[in-house]
Amino acid sequence: MEFLRGLLENIRKQTTLVHHLTNYVTVNDCANIALACGGSPIMGDEIDEVEQIVSQCHSLVINIGTANSRTVASMIQAGRCANNLDLPILLDPVGAGASIFRKNAVASLLQEVNFTVIKGNISEMRTLAGEMMSTCGVDASQADLVNESNLYSEGIFARKLSVLTGAVIVITGPIDIVTDSSQIFAIRNGHLQMSNVTGTGCMLGTLIGCFIGANPGHPMEASVAATALMGVCGELAYEKMIQIDAGLNTFRSLLIDAVGKMDGQQLISRAKIESF
Amino acid sequence: MEFLRGLLENIRKQTTLVHHLTNYVTVNDCANIALACGGSPIMGDEIDEVEQIVSQCHSLVINIGTANSRTVASMIQAGRCANNLDLPILLDPVGAGASIFRKNAVASLLQEVNFTVIKGNISEMRTLAGEMMSTCGVDASQADLVNESNLYSEGIFARKLSVLTGAVIVITGPIDIVTDSSQIFAIRNGHLQMSNVTGTGCMLGTLIGCFIGANPGHPMEASVAATALMGVCGELAYEKMIQIDAGLNTFRSLLIDAVGKMDGQQLISRAKIESF
Amino acid sequence: MEFLRGLLENIRKQTTLVHHLTNYVTVNDCANIALACGGSPIMGDEIDEVEQIVSQCHSLVINIGTANSRTVASMIQAGRCANNLDLPILLDPVGAGASIFRKNAVASLLQEVNFTVIKGNISEMRTLAGEMMSTCGVDASQADLVNESNLYSEGIFARKLSVLTGAVIVITGPIDIVTDSSQIFAIRNGHLQMSNVTGTGCMLGTLIGCFIGANPGHPMEASVAATALMGVCGELAYEKMIQIDAGLNTFRSLLIDAVGKMDGQQLISRAKIESF
Repeated sequence: MEFLRGLLENIRKQTTLVHHLTNYVTVNDCANIALACGGSPIMGDEIDEVEQIVSQCHSLVINIGTANSRTVASMIQAGRCANNLDLPILLDPVGAGASIFRKNAVASLLQEVNFTVIKGNISEMRTLAGEMMSTCGVDASQADLVNESNLYSEGIFARKLSVLTGAVIVITGPIDIVTDSSQIFAIRNGHLQMSNVTGTGCMLGTLIGCFIGANPGHPMEASVAATALMGVCGELAYEKMIQIDAGLNTFRSLLIDAVGKMDGQQLISRAKIESF
Repeated sequence: MEFLRGLLENIRKQTTLVHHLTNYVTVNDCANIALACGGSPIMGDEIDEVEQIVSQCHSLVINIGTANSRTVASMIQAGRCANNLDLPILLDPVGAGASIFRKNAVASLLQEVNFTVIKGNISEMRTLAGEMMSTCGVDASQADLVNESNLYSEGIFARKLSVLTGAVIVITGPIDIVTDSSQIFAIRNGHLQMSNVTGTGCMLGTLIGCFIGANPGHPMEASVAATALMGVCGELAYEKMIQIDAGLNTFRSLLIDAVGKMDGQQLISRAKIESF
Repeated sequence: MEFLRGLLENIRKQTTLVHHLTNYVTVNDCANIALACGGSPIMGDEIDEVEQIVSQCHSLVINIGTANSRTVASMIQAGRCANNLDLPILLDPVGAGASIFRKNAVASLLQEVNFTVIKGNISEMRTLAGEMMSTCGVDASQADLVNESNLYSEGIFARKLSVLTGAVIVITGPIDIVTDSSQIFAIRNGHLQMSNVTGTGCMLGTLIGCFIGANPGHPMEASVAATALMGVCGELAYEKMIQIDAGLNTFRSLLIDAVGKMDGQQLISRAKIESF
């Protein structure tokens, strides 16, 4: 786990600039968790400026949570520019299955942009897979949270998706899966409470954005580290919440607080990362 | 008050999905209070997707807080779709009197969509009434916070508005009024501090959205329960704020915390609901 | 420092309405800090309504943090209207140097609107100056945080910018500078932690908006008071954060809490304001 330390420190050594094209629901928490992690967030979705902003950044986060036709065009423009500059890009296909509009947005993004990492819950990833490999018999109705009993098969699914997209795949759930086309990692950190707060998924997207921006060429290790960091901070926030007898919205603040306080040593000692 | 328990439990028994077309100022708090209440929020304002999203939800919340011409069109589209599917809809005409644009937006919404519940403060409701019944002599300049001295007359005004709109009417203030075309309820919960935090009105709109979604066919009881829940949580948050010597923004978090911790028993024991 | 008391009390004596055309990242914190300060925020960016809203307000805040071509047009419209009504206006040129789009937006705003106060960090102000006085040899590459060693020269730069724009200039940094075309003030309040939270700059913009709205004709004193208030609250929030062993996101809440609790006496006793 020693590698986690260096990956985290790399974010803080420089100012890791992360451009976000993201939703207006959780954008403030994303900005604050980027700062807490040691990164520096920039938001801006005007199509006339995204290329110039991207070109000053270390990475790009694209999150379709409240995308509309104007902002999807900006996302594609930003993504192409990041590809040209060889900058790492994360895609968070929020609610990809909720509408044909979102499915088409994801399909366009996947066609026009090469993503470094794609992160989502199992439903979002199955939707995305369905767009990519309809002949593989992916059945969205089998969608299920990743747990001990289906971990192996979901890992195989994720790896297949990684081969198809060329991206590191992160599937979030009770157990998180991170994989490239060869290795598969299971991360057993986090707390159920995180699903009762809006934006924990988006915030993980931002953390991955910070890690891949600060550690170019190591998107898998970076994604593993970001996912473990988020999980560990969820655990710490839950412990503190219980201790001070607080509730859900305070938990959200405590989670970002924990990211700000985290150092390599604590991350290493609490991370539960396993390859299989 | 025993009915409150069942109404709250119905939100938590299933995952009550509530689609929001709402403002970008308070949207994060709305999402978090929906989750705290046991519901599940979805936000999205692209006109090409709102019908599909609505059709997967239990209810719809329309809040014009930062509406623009693009999003008003999406709101009308979403509202018509919810009507076709017989899904309950809440309208929150934020700042309805602040501009002709907002008045026209409200007028279009009222013409194109049948709302299940309309919630606002007395100024917003008088503006809305002025649009609906200009011949009734509604005078916005008489606008006044609802208190013990004008409670009866405001209740009658609210009931008249309910008859005209066909919607349950919720008027917020020091005393909250909830009425359909027959009964009128006064709710004496809440704390003055709530008006010093942005979004307490919007959050109540979301809570009503959760209650009407989980309790179809009972919009009045659902609105009474949501309004009482918000008020009781405001009281609890204020007590805790004083106890830990905190301030306004912490109060906001404590309010959402309290919603997450609330159970039927506590709600029943603290709710001050009276019909007249 | 006695003048600070009256300036703060003037916000709370009436309801100081401040219209915001601002970014969607920090808008919630801006609304809450306006309320905490005693003001009343209104947000709305539809071009068809901004004039009517402005005409009901005491001041206008324009912040280009996530501006797009639609909202820039609304900002210009709102600004012109405020000028016609002789209402004070603050410009916060967030990330002015990040793109040509932003530079052009700032240039258009400066050409079409007379601002009462312009606030930014040193990089933003140098970009703005570069647009205004390219012949003055302003070199953005010299951009540096304001500290004891460059305070005098930065103060002279700020005063020159004030002469050119006709606006009070506020440059934020370890030491804050406020100046009109004659006097220059240095404010030594605040805490480094404030730069690790998103929106502290935007929130200061809102506070200045409240102060200039409630104290027409005194934009310099108002800007000094708002800047000192923000700094003092940052210090108080930091002390409390350490005391309760909290972190970054809690710090943000504590900062807004402190604004809500601040009175004239405390502000006077902690403000470190010096003219030179």
